[in-house]
Amino acid sequence: MPKAIILRLESYLTYLGQLRSENKKTATSDELAKLFGISSSRVRQDLVALGATGKPRSGYGIAELEERIIQALDVDNKKKIALIGLGNLGRALAGSNVWSQGGFDLRAIFDKDPQLIGTEVHGLKVRSITELFGAIKSDGIAAACITVPASAAQPVTDLLVTAGIKGIWNFSPIEINVPAEVTVENMRLEQGLMTLSFRMRSQSSGMNK
Amino acid sequence: MPKAIILRLESYLTYLGQLRSENKKTATSDELAKLFGISSSRVRQDLVALGATGKPRSGYGIAELEERIIQALDVDNKKKIALIGLGNLGRALAGSNVWSQGGFDLRAIFDKDPQLIGTEVHGLKVRSITELFGAIKSDGIAAACITVPASAAQPVTDLLVTAGIKGIWNFSPIEINVPAEVTVENMRLEQGLMTLSFRMRSQSSGMNK
Repeated sequence: MPKAIILRLESYLTYLGQLRSENKKTATSDELAKLFGISSSRVRQDLVALGATGKPRSGYGIAELEERIIQALDVDNKKKIALIGLGNLGRALAGSNVWSQGGFDLRAIFDKDPQLIGTEVHGLKVRSITELFGAIKSDGIAAACITVPASAAQPVTDLLVTAGIKGIWNFSPIEINVPAEVTVENMRLEQGLMTLSFRMRSQSSGMNK
Repeated sequence: MPKAIILRLESYLTYLGQLRSENKKTATSDELAKLFGISSSRVRQDLVALGATGKPRSGYGIAELEERIIQALDVDNKKKIALIGLGNLGRALAGSNVWSQGGFDLRAIFDKDPQLIGTEVHGLKVRSITELFGAIKSDGIAAACITVPASAAQPVTDLLVTAGIKGIWNFSPIEINVPAEVTVENMRLEQGLMTLSFRMRSQSSGMNK
């Protein structure tokens, strides 16, 4: 599935959650199309691929559509994940609910700072990075989020790969090298700002017309 | 410009930066196409819209292409931005280089915690949220990043809008309401995990075939 479609499914899901919180029961392809400035036929194409068919006037049942997207993205199957690096960003993520929303279950936190090792963060005891290999093996952890400095990113990745990790959520600013069977999702926070930058200019030039 | 194209331009830019750091001078549309699993003709379409034309064999000059994308996204025009909320996430962002990479210049930090107000964070003095309105007006700040709890997101947004902010990078988990002339870019960190979730399953089912 192309990345653009995965991103759209994620956005549909976010939007459907909002509609549900407003007690709405159905959503039309037109409403969803507005999200991305795409055509409603493109939306229907995306959704038919998941086996979802809307009704002529009312559209799609929100609960059913959410369920189908959640299944397509495998979000209901919570995969065990470890967090490596307990700086400010790691700490912010550890305390957030992104894990379960994104299809994961945060099970372990590792850092190299002796001051942090042994302390408890959101119910998890921080472990030494030297225990990483054994812990990942014994706990059956499938994925890792790395929020370590750039210089540590590749060595930590190598350790994770050797321990059998299959997916890495990479917040470090460098491109990490992994074997073909390991999936890496790079988180480039600056891309959100670039989008804002572009849209602010479009907005202001649109208003000057 | 559809969001999908903006996202592709951002990813081209990240990738071109990596190639440049490896001392490469040119990149082909085929190389860029691999990034997204899209066709190389789609890549050429994206780039021709920016006025960039590749040479038959060698492809695009990396430095020139980066320059064109930077201009298209308005990243070289650094807009003044304020950070509201100095929790772990705010602190991580304050110390990062996302601002200049994304087209902004972090000029002010606000929080409501008296313990934080007056302290210095990465060269900026933390100010009270009660000073927000005046400071934004007098400093000519155009955008804001909000990393406040969900309950504070809408009141802070209302204050920012009244002060004349034109763009908001929203890390709070709620949808904020703004007038039409204000641009909001929602940062949904869990979407990165959903992509990883989807791709890990595709990877493992592909390997079982």
